[in-house]
Amino acid sequence: MLSVIPKSISFNGRALSQNFRHSCHSNGNMSEQGEVFERPDTVVVDPPLEKHHTIEPFAFLTSVKESERKYNVLLISNQAFKTDLKTIWVHCGLVVCSDGGANRLHDYFANDQERGDYLPNYIVGDFDSLRDDVRGFYKSKGVKIIPQYGQYSNDFQKSVRCIQLHYSFLEQGRQWLEVDEDDGLKEIWENEFGGASDIQIRIYALSVIGGRFDQTIQSINQLYILHQKEPNLHLFFITNDDLIFLLYKGVNYVMYPNRAIFCKNMSSPPLCGLLPLGDKPVTLNSFGFRYDVQNWLTKMMGQVSSSNRVVGKKGFIVECSEDISMNVELSL
Amino acid sequence: MLSVIPKSISFNGRALSQNFRHSCHSNGNMSEQGEVFERPDTVVVDPPLEKHHTIEPFAFLTSVKESERKYNVLLISNQAFKTDLKTIWVHCGLVVCSDGGANRLHDYFANDQERGDYLPNYIVGDFDSLRDDVRGFYKSKGVKIIPQYGQYSNDFQKSVRCIQLHYSFLEQGRQWLEVDEDDGLKEIWENEFGGASDIQIRIYALSVIGGRFDQTIQSINQLYILHQKEPNLHLFFITNDDLIFLLYKGVNYVMYPNRAIFCKNMSSPPLCGLLPLGDKPVTLNSFGFRYDVQNWLTKMMGQVSSSNRVVGKKGFIVECSEDISMNVELSL
Repeated sequence: MLSVIPKSISFNGRALSQNFRHSCHSNGNMSEQGEVFERPDTVVVDPPLEKHHTIEPFAFLTSVKESERKYNVLLISNQAFKTDLKTIWVHCGLVVCSDGGANRLHDYFANDQERGDYLPNYIVGDFDSLRDDVRGFYKSKGVKIIPQYGQYSNDFQKSVRCIQLHYSFLEQGRQWLEVDEDDGLKEIWENEFGGASDIQIRIYALSVIGGRFDQTIQSINQLYILHQKEPNLHLFFITNDDLIFLLYKGVNYVMYPNRAIFCKNMSSPPLCGLLPLGDKPVTLNSFGFRYDVQNWLTKMMGQVSSSNRVVGKKGFIVECSEDISMNVELSL
Repeated sequence: MLSVIPKSISFNGRALSQNFRHSCHSNGNMSEQGEVFERPDTVVVDPPLEKHHTIEPFAFLTSVKESERKYNVLLISNQAFKTDLKTIWVHCGLVVCSDGGANRLHDYFANDQERGDYLPNYIVGDFDSLRDDVRGFYKSKGVKIIPQYGQYSNDFQKSVRCIQLHYSFLEQGRQWLEVDEDDGLKEIWENEFGGASDIQIRIYALSVIGGRFDQTIQSINQLYILHQKEPNLHLFFITNDDLIFLLYKGVNYVMYPNRAIFCKNMSSPPLCGLLPLGDKPVTLNSFGFRYDVQNWLTKMMGQVSSSNRVVGKKGFIVECSEDISMNVELSL
């Protein structure tokens, strides 16, 4: 268990039991519950002393230096989004459109001049939804268009391979090889690079979560699986309401310059949840939430922490016995 | 295993392997996969001969007789929705607004005359979001308004208790008792009715799923937990894209008059998914989907069936080793 988590700190809050019950609905097994500590609106949380994963989920809103931007990827899929694209764009070093995601990017702008200022680096997919006019426009602007007609992977997986290859070629100072239009990305990735990389890359996937529920859950499934298969990739889903990402087994320090970066409306601390959507129950210890927990077992059909709040001023700590997904409210 | 599921039937489809890989992303454990059978666009699926749960998820679009409508409840929560309320309303025998859900109902209509034609039966909650003008309007129309300020339950749970009590009082020919404004619904439910009922009730919860992801997952958690605690309640979430509900451990026959009832655009069969969001892996057998499965183990971080399609003409069968949630595309 984390030694840095204080059992109690002074605060002015309503009765713990009331608020906590409101946030954490349990199936009634009291022995599962571990301990819960209520925190004030703001708490200073220093980085843990022990070995930990450092996660900077809001890099897509803060990266300025080229060395920071370089490994932030914006991945645009084919669903409506309300996010302010230009705000994100400047902080990302690479933009990939997944099939009809290119239509969304194209239609986001009012005219070709603006469109020309926001060109993606790649358009990838089986192109069952990419419009001809969109393909024509981006082709004329020199965007690399990579058809992958094979149906053993979906467009998201094809885009992920394109991203891996982009950075792997770049690192080795190599030019792109010719890509077979069936399943060429996968072949190159496996044959040239052994299907692995240790380049740390953040992928910000826009417009993936929030439509049909089976697609949402399949994407969450991919979030967990991708980390097991390609641990150099760090996947974040940007929805119209929040940012969804994975915390890794062990100790995590999630850091940000300040909370107003991702939550403009700071009348209350940003809402969040810890969501045990893997295949095992998770024991949690945390420091930096309205309702911090110690030795708290969470699982579906049991107690789940929702409507919690981020009170860590510049970061929070979560120790988990298994990978666990979390969401943090976004208001940009 | 179900004896009624044919291993193969004649069909005209693309190669199974291609489509199936597209739909069911696996973590690569081939031994998990069981068997998969591709079906044509339409298959006749008779009710199973063995003991089974009959589920009619689309009753909110088809119930006409008073005896059918009576036990369909429309529960409106405080989130934006695109659903055509009037289409649903006529098929529901009871309407409950959960706190600010009453604002949504109020603002859905252009004028008071129309509003007066669509009055809810109850407004329940801690009223931290119910507007004064809305409360005033519905009070003047005789709607029963039940404040429940206690914070040990959330507004959804309070509304569920109100629904249980409504039918329990009705069945016994009793009038409502006076409800204490702190936690009175729970007290009456437990003291007068022992916290249980065997009246079979369908609750159609509008505008619950699709906002912040922790709220979505907490609601799915409640879907599973509610069935364990109060098995007379059958909960359905209506989202802007689909209907989400639970299939029960054992054999399920999901029936409907025809698919056009819930999916106006029948150029392709309605999309669906089987989503193992409980706390255990689930072994599935199915008959009536594009990709039917036999002895197919599904779990998060493993293989999950998404982008499947409903091909059963008037119903489909799912046998599952544990409760499992599913979604079906709605286009009304």
